[in-house]
Amino acid sequence: MLRIDVNADVGESLGAWPMGHDARLMPFVSSANIACGFHAGDPDTMRRTVELALEHHVAIGAHPGLQDLVGFGRREMHVSAREVENLVTYQIGALWAIAAARGGTVRHVKAHGALYNMAARDSTLADAIARGVAAVDRSLILFGLAGSELIDAGRRAGLRTASEVFGDRAYLPDGRLQPRGEPGAVIHDADVVASRVIEMVKSGQTTAVDGSTIAVRAETVCVHGDTPDAAELARRVRAAIAAAGVVVAAPE
Amino acid sequence: MLRIDVNADVGESLGAWPMGHDARLMPFVSSANIACGFHAGDPDTMRRTVELALEHHVAIGAHPGLQDLVGFGRREMHVSAREVENLVTYQIGALWAIAAARGGTVRHVKAHGALYNMAARDSTLADAIARGVAAVDRSLILFGLAGSELIDAGRRAGLRTASEVFGDRAYLPDGRLQPRGEPGAVIHDADVVASRVIEMVKSGQTTAVDGSTIAVRAETVCVHGDTPDAAELARRVRAAIAAAGVVVAAPE
Amino acid sequence: MLRIDVNADVGESLGAWPMGHDARLMPFVSSANIACGFHAGDPDTMRRTVELALEHHVAIGAHPGLQDLVGFGRREMHVSAREVENLVTYQIGALWAIAAARGGTVRHVKAHGALYNMAARDSTLADAIARGVAAVDRSLILFGLAGSELIDAGRRAGLRTASEVFGDRAYLPDGRLQPRGEPGAVIHDADVVASRVIEMVKSGQTTAVDGSTIAVRAETVCVHGDTPDAAELARRVRAAIAAAGVVVAAPE
Amino acid sequence: MLRIDVNADVGESLGAWPMGHDARLMPFVSSANIACGFHAGDPDTMRRTVELALEHHVAIGAHPGLQDLVGFGRREMHVSAREVENLVTYQIGALWAIAAARGGTVRHVKAHGALYNMAARDSTLADAIARGVAAVDRSLILFGLAGSELIDAGRRAGLRTASEVFGDRAYLPDGRLQPRGEPGAVIHDADVVASRVIEMVKSGQTTAVDGSTIAVRAETVCVHGDTPDAAELARRVRAAIAAAGVVVAAPE
Repeated sequence: MLRIDVNADVGESLGAWPMGHDARLMPFVSSANIACGFHAGDPDTMRRTVELALEHHVAIGAHPGLQDLVGFGRREMHVSAREVENLVTYQIGALWAIAAARGGTVRHVKAHGALYNMAARDSTLADAIARGVAAVDRSLILFGLAGSELIDAGRRAGLRTASEVFGDRAYLPDGRLQPRGEPGAVIHDADVVASRVIEMVKSGQTTAVDGSTIAVRAETVCVHGDTPDAAELARRVRAAIAAAGVVVAAPE
Repeated sequence: MLRIDVNADVGESLGAWPMGHDARLMPFVSSANIACGFHAGDPDTMRRTVELALEHHVAIGAHPGLQDLVGFGRREMHVSAREVENLVTYQIGALWAIAAARGGTVRHVKAHGALYNMAARDSTLADAIARGVAAVDRSLILFGLAGSELIDAGRRAGLRTASEVFGDRAYLPDGRLQPRGEPGAVIHDADVVASRVIEMVKSGQTTAVDGSTIAVRAETVCVHGDTPDAAELARRVRAAIAAAGVVVAAPE
Repeated sequence: MLRIDVNADVGESLGAWPMGHDARLMPFVSSANIACGFHAGDPDTMRRTVELALEHHVAIGAHPGLQDLVGFGRREMHVSAREVENLVTYQIGALWAIAAARGGTVRHVKAHGALYNMAARDSTLADAIARGVAAVDRSLILFGLAGSELIDAGRRAGLRTASEVFGDRAYLPDGRLQPRGEPGAVIHDADVVASRVIEMVKSGQTTAVDGSTIAVRAETVCVHGDTPDAAELARRVRAAIAAAGVVVAAPE
Repeated sequence: MLRIDVNADVGESLGAWPMGHDARLMPFVSSANIACGFHAGDPDTMRRTVELALEHHVAIGAHPGLQDLVGFGRREMHVSAREVENLVTYQIGALWAIAAARGGTVRHVKAHGALYNMAARDSTLADAIARGVAAVDRSLILFGLAGSELIDAGRRAGLRTASEVFGDRAYLPDGRLQPRGEPGAVIHDADVVASRVIEMVKSGQTTAVDGSTIAVRAETVCVHGDTPDAAELARRVRAAIAAAGVVVAAPE
């Protein structure tokens, strides 16, 4: 039976500032990556988001980021491996406790923004993230860009990993994502997004921007929640995946 | 056998800013209250402080505070019960994970500064702290000012509590501490501090500023670490307590 | 000729988090209170908001708040007079420079949220705000709740003041605003809001919740920008004020 | 008459965390670079530091940094030119107002840490800093590493510049500083430091780590204040400079 996880970044509000459409998105995902207060989120927001995930039987994951509220954790910083390891551990623990307060538990970890991107290509930072995760609980599942350093680091640390793909992003021939700013980098058509995901799951391949076929291991697919029509896109992608006979479920 | 815990606030450095004399103080305490990043501390500082506590076989405790770095968590804020509950849970979890990374575990929780003081007199906030602690782990021990609302709240929440006394602070007839700014509020003589602590442990009483005798339950005594001679004061107080036949040990 | 200023709090976005509908609101106000980075806002947001104000010929004002992003500056804090004086001065200066970069200048100062409310009733903090303003430029106009300590403090400091009224808020018999949480505290009907403002300007009086008539000096009226229909409410209120023969203009 | 400015980074305390020995250092410098709250400093600290500078007739300068308290502004971040321009303007304005409150005025700007280093080699960020300075006041003097992009950017923006040298740091043959971590990168002997500075001022040259002679324009020299013997080092360096017939004075 083919299966894939559908994940989304949620809990990215901050105090009085709402972000995203978590309540509308949650019914269509199997894993929720919850911001932990460094790039977004705060204890109250985390609590509400945990409750929402539990209500929808969605797997709770930590979404640790760089300590940069104004930049939303998207600005790369020259952080040391020690800093990364400890900030990942810290944020997972914070969410773990908030989840425990509602009877939930943290199942996976997906680094956010610049931390995710730096770790995809830098094995030292990737190892630091993996150590920061393993230090808390070796049964946590580490999410990372398919084919990236982060997946390798997770395996080196003895963690289970989930290779992440993006149905709404164009791939370069070397397996990296085309940078967002470039034309064609983001795909908006739900049918195209869904068919790309289904192809990745079924064939383990996708078509890169130059027309070449590249291998991608698709264990979890990210849907975005920050646009007004995000929930509708997620609904259609999930429905199309299910219609193709692929089971949508959190990794185990 | 009479016994008392000796606790100190540690891990209050922040990034490049050192604070306190943790390495010199740690040999003389049985419980370490470690700042968790809201009023002081950061993930790297927490990690180093956990390692120091483990090295000295000192019980690790969370020292959650209000989110106020510039005010060092000493400025009272009109926070809601929900905010307090969640920020306490968050900070305990963060330290729990950092401690777990080194094989340690969090044993107790002592609120910091304004949070501690507000909860001593406000039962709503005291209950919120107790709920925030119990939500993480019902075996955690809640520290609070002896005779205060926080101790009552801990009991209501089904937590074990440790009633805290201050050997270096003058008491008012109603059991509260004399405000720091007032003359005579802080006692600097190590012999006087030690004898006051010993009296509290042995008799369950102390002498208030007006000469009256008041009841105080002394289960843990706070020694301060932020002055150059803090370690020496702690050393002498601990030695005097031991010489009086009182066992110094973390609460169990 | 009767006149009144119409002011709104703007520039309250933070990095990736938008707030308010500044672009839609700006055409209907004569004074813009721009957040300065302590409770909301950041340098880029301030720059964009200054540009928007200049484009609409709206007077630029600083909207300094307590250093509390997660609480949006709405949580009262026990800050000292010295802290308040300096944080007001700091924030005005920051906006002054951002405005100067676009050829603009700061014309007035309105404290935000908890700072505004504390200063309305606490003369020590009110004097601290007034000193913090006067220290930068004695020609700045200090906004404050009509009849409050802040207006008195501004006069003591030799500043021009603008007494602020709220058309959409119920008044208590002593001139204070009815707390937001209470039923009837907020008025949503644009016609009612407008007629209340016009009455205040024309008669110097308004009707309190108990039916009594109270005196209010109405030099500037606050319109809120944080609801979807805020701009429409502002448009209607402004139109009604103008139709009543009252000139809408920033204080001079 | 040969002359040089002696500058130091000061005002780097944060709330309860002291840093540096400003009061002891101030008598020996002619320019003070005052932290502005993004990487260090806070409004109260800025006020005290301004007062100290005025007392010692030391020129007040802004020392803007990246918004990174935990990293003390030393971690490079991928900030945009727009972000840099506005955060520089913001911080200068904040200090300008704090200085104005005491009758002082900002005379120069020196970027801090990672911002300084990035701007030394990146002309886009260097131009952004120069624009951020010029936007506030074209009479401000921009400090930058001698021979770096920042000096060129300052000139392009029509600003006066002060080329900075480091008597206590080894130079690479291309004029950059040897990275701190490497052996020999930091010179501790006051006599050597002083003689290197005097040579730079008199000859416009210094000796690089490979023995080659390189040109350096020495208009201001940085003395560090963060070590216990910093004030003594500064005293000796200043005395040696004066004894060599070189006038120590802020740039005009």
